[in-house]
Amino acid sequence: MAEIVIWGAGRVGRGIAADLCRDGQHELTVVDASETALEQVRDRCEGELRTRCADLSDPAAARASAAEHDLVIGALASRLGMTALRAVIDAGRPYCDISFMEEDPLELDRAAREAGITAVVDCGVAPGLSHMLAQRSVDDLDRADRVTIYVGGVPRERRWPFEYKAGFAPRDVVAEYTRPVHLREHGRETVRPALASRELIDVEGIGTMEAFLTDGLRTLVRSLEVPNLAEKTLRYPGHAELMAVFREAGFFDEQPRRVGEVSVRPIDLFSELVFPLWSYRPGEADLTVMKVAVEGERRGAAVRDEWHLYDAYDPHTDTTSMARSTAYPCTAVARLLLDEQVPGPGVIPPERIAENPARLERVLTSLRERGVRIGRRETNPAE
Amino acid sequence: MAEIVIWGAGRVGRGIAADLCRDGQHELTVVDASETALEQVRDRCEGELRTRCADLSDPAAARASAAEHDLVIGALASRLGMTALRAVIDAGRPYCDISFMEEDPLELDRAAREAGITAVVDCGVAPGLSHMLAQRSVDDLDRADRVTIYVGGVPRERRWPFEYKAGFAPRDVVAEYTRPVHLREHGRETVRPALASRELIDVEGIGTMEAFLTDGLRTLVRSLEVPNLAEKTLRYPGHAELMAVFREAGFFDEQPRRVGEVSVRPIDLFSELVFPLWSYRPGEADLTVMKVAVEGERRGAAVRDEWHLYDAYDPHTDTTSMARSTAYPCTAVARLLLDEQVPGPGVIPPERIAENPARLERVLTSLRERGVRIGRRETNPAE
Repeated sequence: MAEIVIWGAGRVGRGIAADLCRDGQHELTVVDASETALEQVRDRCEGELRTRCADLSDPAAARASAAEHDLVIGALASRLGMTALRAVIDAGRPYCDISFMEEDPLELDRAAREAGITAVVDCGVAPGLSHMLAQRSVDDLDRADRVTIYVGGVPRERRWPFEYKAGFAPRDVVAEYTRPVHLREHGRETVRPALASRELIDVEGIGTMEAFLTDGLRTLVRSLEVPNLAEKTLRYPGHAELMAVFREAGFFDEQPRRVGEVSVRPIDLFSELVFPLWSYRPGEADLTVMKVAVEGERRGAAVRDEWHLYDAYDPHTDTTSMARSTAYPCTAVARLLLDEQVPGPGVIPPERIAENPARLERVLTSLRERGVRIGRRETNPAE
Repeated sequence: MAEIVIWGAGRVGRGIAADLCRDGQHELTVVDASETALEQVRDRCEGELRTRCADLSDPAAARASAAEHDLVIGALASRLGMTALRAVIDAGRPYCDISFMEEDPLELDRAAREAGITAVVDCGVAPGLSHMLAQRSVDDLDRADRVTIYVGGVPRERRWPFEYKAGFAPRDVVAEYTRPVHLREHGRETVRPALASRELIDVEGIGTMEAFLTDGLRTLVRSLEVPNLAEKTLRYPGHAELMAVFREAGFFDEQPRRVGEVSVRPIDLFSELVFPLWSYRPGEADLTVMKVAVEGERRGAAVRDEWHLYDAYDPHTDTTSMARSTAYPCTAVARLLLDEQVPGPGVIPPERIAENPARLERVLTSLRERGVRIGRRETNPAE
């Protein structure tokens, strides 16, 4: 029996714990700084589960926790991602993480190699599964010209004025709308503003959505040798324009502004007013959709290869589709790690999971067994 | 020679002073609390003009100033409108005002009657000329069913993200978007939210504009016996939705909100960030458009009677169309007051000017001579 520790008892952490609990094959411990969050995770899991209240922003505590287990799963806030990765390397334990840290995790690749451990990072839905699917499609072509990843989480009900709720920390959502976007165009690495290059696309089961550039490619910009490479976020139409207006007028600014007698950061007032409107009500349904579109050539013929993912809120376990679709790629890779099926040692980006088609198949089967709909369709773009 | 005093040397006050100066028939004095504003008015006027620096928010100062002149013209900020009206009544001087005070000026009607003076209020473009044109069309029909006043000032150049600049105090613009709208529907006085009942209308010389309810009918709600009566503001399409989102999210709130360590009124931060984007640059052109549409019946036939007004920034005198189209109805009525052509005594709403067609004709001729385009078109709505 492997001893697994899950760091973080937020929405995704709870989804990971519940899923691994159902396996009945591991000794599971969940660590979080919040006793309330730990209570929720105990309520959610059917089976044996230990919980421990500890502050993992303390590197020594994280290292000690890692050292006590065979495998560490990271589901902490993005700002704690790098500290967590350092701690598992120091403790010499295999790792699988969904934190989507702002820093470049590959900077610790050498340290991970030296420690002889395998750490799979960015292992959620996007980045994560998105990169695996892109890698697989590119490998299946003789030449790939263009990869576009479309992905988004939205509430099922569209309510004015934002028609949006945040499936994860709303500050991280705003960061997606402000952070410069790194992509590849005509073979060159380029930087473009977020919210740009808007287009409408029809999504099965939802209808017409709007797609716009955000910075989610990460390692893929360098690891995938495709001349045109972009990630676009999906929302209900109109959201990008609204966010662009707020950004342009300065409401996302982090710099304090003088307002009468006081000084205030515009983003703080925006958070105060808007984030309550972006909060899911208890039991409110969300949807997660992803399309990975790869264009290229096989045996002289133009090919368009598309992956489609659709997932919805699970009312039986009160699990958001955002938590489900993020947790299940992570638990699938955790099982591969336990079976020593992941290449290493080093810091491994998710696309490398797909280098072996059978390995990707295990991940996809795992997601489908849990009700996440994933399809693939190849068309001739000339038709 | 009549001795006229103009209170206020803002954009509209300057326009009034310059226009009356060209008459060469009056002794003119302009009073303002700002020496800079008085300097600008002296620069603008070709001819004799006295200026006096005084604070007219002091009732005694206002009363003394009124008492020294034969006629008072009010072009002060809306918050000073009621004080000014009281002062002219106390001093017993005829008055013509464009301040668009928030209070109901008719509350002072009895006092004005007792003092034996005539005070024409709301005497700009809308309210003002708008009410005169509506009154005229209603009088020309056997039965009027519907009066809709469409009016707006916009920059000639449409620039993202707001495609709007404020021709008068931007706080007063926001007040238009938040103040409940008083109108008449099916014979009943009703209150509706501002920014509601949006529609697109085509405006000659501009293109498609958006119209939405604002609270500008004032006295007309009671004085005009028409079952359907509404005022709508005109903007470039999309502005109302954007303003409705800001309002809904709370950015127009006057109540302070706790933000971290400080307390801030959301409207104050909105003003700080957005009002600079709503400011006309020096020499930037604005447009003013108005349509007064009256539907009814004459000799058993359905009739639609429409007035159209169009005015543009005057680059030669650097006068905005907002100042021109507000100042010229006021100066026209001031001349009528000097000729004792206005009914009274009492507080007179602008629609009463139009009770006499020849009197309205003098106002219209005066505007046309100054380059404001005004047309009238009668159509059969069944065709």
